[in-house]
Amino acid sequence: MTFINYFLRYTTISLMFILSHMNAQNTEPYKYPQSEIATIHSKVLNEDRKIYIHLPKLDSTNLDNRFPVLYLMDGENHFELFAQYADYLSRPDVLAIPKMIIVGIPNTQRRRDLTPTVSITDWEGKPDTSNLIKPSGGNEIFLKFIKTELIPAIDKSYKTKRYKILAGHSFGGLSSINCMLTYPDMFDAYIAVSPSFWWDDRYLLKLADKKLKKESNLKKILFYSDGNEGGSSSFFHSDLLKFDSLISNKNLIGLDYMYKHYPTETHMTAPIVAYFDALRFIFKEWEKQQ
Amino acid sequence: MTFINYFLRYTTISLMFILSHMNAQNTEPYKYPQSEIATIHSKVLNEDRKIYIHLPKLDSTNLDNRFPVLYLMDGENHFELFAQYADYLSRPDVLAIPKMIIVGIPNTQRRRDLTPTVSITDWEGKPDTSNLIKPSGGNEIFLKFIKTELIPAIDKSYKTKRYKILAGHSFGGLSSINCMLTYPDMFDAYIAVSPSFWWDDRYLLKLADKKLKKESNLKKILFYSDGNEGGSSSFFHSDLLKFDSLISNKNLIGLDYMYKHYPTETHMTAPIVAYFDALRFIFKEWEKQQ
Repeated sequence: MTFINYFLRYTTISLMFILSHMNAQNTEPYKYPQSEIATIHSKVLNEDRKIYIHLPKLDSTNLDNRFPVLYLMDGENHFELFAQYADYLSRPDVLAIPKMIIVGIPNTQRRRDLTPTVSITDWEGKPDTSNLIKPSGGNEIFLKFIKTELIPAIDKSYKTKRYKILAGHSFGGLSSINCMLTYPDMFDAYIAVSPSFWWDDRYLLKLADKKLKKESNLKKILFYSDGNEGGSSSFFHSDLLKFDSLISNKNLIGLDYMYKHYPTETHMTAPIVAYFDALRFIFKEWEKQQ
Repeated sequence: MTFINYFLRYTTISLMFILSHMNAQNTEPYKYPQSEIATIHSKVLNEDRKIYIHLPKLDSTNLDNRFPVLYLMDGENHFELFAQYADYLSRPDVLAIPKMIIVGIPNTQRRRDLTPTVSITDWEGKPDTSNLIKPSGGNEIFLKFIKTELIPAIDKSYKTKRYKILAGHSFGGLSSINCMLTYPDMFDAYIAVSPSFWWDDRYLLKLADKKLKKESNLKKILFYSDGNEGGSSSFFHSDLLKFDSLISNKNLIGLDYMYKHYPTETHMTAPIVAYFDALRFIFKEWEKQQ
């Protein structure tokens, strides 16, 4: 690169940078806490995946600290919400939860990654013929991606503690429960907001009944909830009640669980309050120790 | 500035800009929705005030739209939360509230601006001797700043609708109620999360009883709440119960109000769920029309 080219290139960048400030008189950009997007190549999924990462603000008092990590499915929907909760609720004048790292996983093929089986029936119980355009049943592979590629990459790049939470909504809630049933040791706490138990003729309710042996050990924290999907008599609500009753009857040793029903919230508004309640529930003992 | 100084200055800025990208391999900054900070000089307060402004994302379908505005006190505490709620809850797949402009007012002298009187007694009812170091009683002037300087400036610079909400927490909640009693026409809806009714021997409870004439017109929306401040038998909770009873007994025509008590939330965690519930309450009729 010649000297003059070098000069022109950087003065152009500089001027663009400066002009954008000059356009807005008496205003400056508001600075949100920094988050970043990493791109990692997954051999398991055979594709590049973007990952959103929100880190606690470091200062001289916690430069060497390590932090719990919350892994969030549907990163494109609720990553900013969790980043906000993590920052605010861990402030020194709030201290409801510890400082945390939030890892949001945005979707590429949501239905493929977040459903446990190739669907046979749709949510009304009718034959599901949509698999050609919307493949399903890849949750096992997706969880393998999280376990063998994502978690090691995050642990390598950031100051993580061992404590990990998995959070999901709708199909993401389904995946969270599926992970707890299939690989319970992957996470310490599971959040399932409005999990789509209707999937494939209640596949996951049946799996839960099979996998969870009565009075077996399951030293985890579990939060699940539903909104007003279809009204109080809907299959959505009755599925959650069935799951809640199953969990209660299994009398699992060490499991600390909470079910919350939000009768005034929709499928899409419920995550705001449910994710907040879930964080409060998971860290209730931590809060007492502050 | 000489040419060589000019060159050095801008290449330095450019290189800093580029190095910060190179440090983080395979990562890029996460882009939060843009918000801005405006600085306006207030003649009323005789000081410069920074104002945080969050605008709805514009696209081809709403370029000419105008938006309701929520004015938030304690901008440094809950501006990002409201920006997040405003964006998420107005998404086309959520549609719980309309797209809104959020105006956050960070404090310069909080106690001066957000209390209605020069305090005589502290929260325990003992003589308050702190006025020399922490002046109080400037809420009237602060509300005048909002009315005569801030609202006109926002209306001039942004595509505002007439519909306006005032939101505050603690002393901010006190200010919100004080505004509704003193200048009810300034806003269409008032949010008071854990208002500090203890201020100056319940000054505001007495003012409410005086100002609100039985069965008078008050066509506003009002949301107020408290957390577990001091436990269920605390003066904080009993003050809120007194206010709720007063509002109920006054039988005000047109007033649409809601009181929520959050027994499991602290003074600092309650705003997260209370501000959400408040937005849901204020826009419940709007939501039905979608």
